[in-house]
Amino acid sequence: MKPAKSIVETTIQRVSVGEDTAVDTDVLAIEEPLEIRLGLSDGGHKAISITMRTPGNDAELAAGFLFTEGIITSPAQIRQIRHCGRKSGKGAGILDRATALNSNTIRVDLHPDVDIDLKRLERHFYTTSSCGVCGKSSIEALATGVKKLLPNGFTVSRGLLNQLPESLRRSQCIFDQTGGLHASALFTADGTLDILREDVGRHNALDKVIGGKFLADEVPLSKRGLVVSGRASFELVQKALMAGIPIMAAVGAPSSLAVELAREFGMTLAGFVRDGRFNVYCGVERVSN
Amino acid sequence: MKPAKSIVETTIQRVSVGEDTAVDTDVLAIEEPLEIRLGLSDGGHKAISITMRTPGNDAELAAGFLFTEGIITSPAQIRQIRHCGRKSGKGAGILDRATALNSNTIRVDLHPDVDIDLKRLERHFYTTSSCGVCGKSSIEALATGVKKLLPNGFTVSRGLLNQLPESLRRSQCIFDQTGGLHASALFTADGTLDILREDVGRHNALDKVIGGKFLADEVPLSKRGLVVSGRASFELVQKALMAGIPIMAAVGAPSSLAVELAREFGMTLAGFVRDGRFNVYCGVERVSN
Repeated sequence: MKPAKSIVETTIQRVSVGEDTAVDTDVLAIEEPLEIRLGLSDGGHKAISITMRTPGNDAELAAGFLFTEGIITSPAQIRQIRHCGRKSGKGAGILDRATALNSNTIRVDLHPDVDIDLKRLERHFYTTSSCGVCGKSSIEALATGVKKLLPNGFTVSRGLLNQLPESLRRSQCIFDQTGGLHASALFTADGTLDILREDVGRHNALDKVIGGKFLADEVPLSKRGLVVSGRASFELVQKALMAGIPIMAAVGAPSSLAVELAREFGMTLAGFVRDGRFNVYCGVERVSN
Repeated sequence: MKPAKSIVETTIQRVSVGEDTAVDTDVLAIEEPLEIRLGLSDGGHKAISITMRTPGNDAELAAGFLFTEGIITSPAQIRQIRHCGRKSGKGAGILDRATALNSNTIRVDLHPDVDIDLKRLERHFYTTSSCGVCGKSSIEALATGVKKLLPNGFTVSRGLLNQLPESLRRSQCIFDQTGGLHASALFTADGTLDILREDVGRHNALDKVIGGKFLADEVPLSKRGLVVSGRASFELVQKALMAGIPIMAAVGAPSSLAVELAREFGMTLAGFVRDGRFNVYCGVERVSN
């Protein structure tokens, strides 16, 4: 197994308050889906999990997942763990690359005498909103239901964008008390926070924000930006795109797939928004001076 | 719907280098499972997701989840969203409380003319290791396969514990380049890092660590501690318990359910390990001077 690539370079716009915007390169942690399959005695397989991960040590990840989920109990039960490819098919660029890599599917074959109750497995597995892609049966389905964002005049000034994390932090009630909670909030063109939700899961904080607006029949949110307290993952970008949000600002780093997805669908994505600076990974036309 | 409780107080041991350990109280963000059910036309229901969340705005969370996952498209499709209880049954303390609350299950009823393809739903939903509890079909199954940790002489000094985040950070290759990756590592009694893995998903980083040891047939890890770069969630504690790890140190905050689970199974859990200080939430007997 050749070593997996865990980082990738990308071109960004580096923005500092009071300085000219500079084109620069930044290094992203790679985020890609891994489908874990269990080999069946008839030579077929059963897909049991899709998780967004950084490539590398995939065999460990598959073994660790099977063990910590209680599916296997001893390494002696494993006959082989190997990546298995499927040929790249139809689909847009972002998906082609993932499928073409041939390293985003890993198959675990157990010894024939190992008894796994497949029915039990099926019954016991639910999805979660913390996976995004996991809710889809195939990597090709990643972008289902997401529409390309078109320019609609909604922009945000760099000065305002810079103040968002501070506004977010000031408005976080639970964080103040516990020091440990993710937040998501929508903001208007003048920087006012519109709705803020906190949760131990960042995907949940975002689902609450979007759900609140959805229930008020205010989706698509074409005149709202989104600020999140942590990193920008594929999943958060996907959810924001589902709601038609044109701008996303993250206090932390974006992953490779978050950037790819945002680019693919025309979203403005800013990361490392802190200390009077931020990086724009795509859609810089929505950031005004 | 009465406002949900989002924080809870707990007794901790506050440890500072060069000072006596003090008993104190700390406030935790509550983490509890939420099962989202879709009402069926025959009056029954289908559980479609279990996610670990902070209680509050559960209706928004359910609606946001259904919308961002592409299951519903308009608020007009929703007839009613309500919490539905199930009576507390058999099970250990930690589980009883969750089920007794009656607010960890929410049901979404759609209008009869809304067409949801249940088969498609089923086929398209996988689990992910990023949910832990989601891999189980019921809240009662949370602790399946986890054994209570017994004292075995493995301890860690407070000085050594304090240096773990720094060691972790120094050894993180990908973080240095990207500024955005979770890390998990095991450490020995003398503070040496044994195996370190990085990933965009903290559950994946931990699965890789445990999977590596599992494949080397070195599980249970009764003579290893675990240090994680972020917060301590229920899921991370559950995975560590599956591998028999007696001590877990987190740079960030633990959630309420992480603390409950660690207490229930005799694990030592330290949080906010930084700046020469940390909090011990349980199992202080494994922390020496």
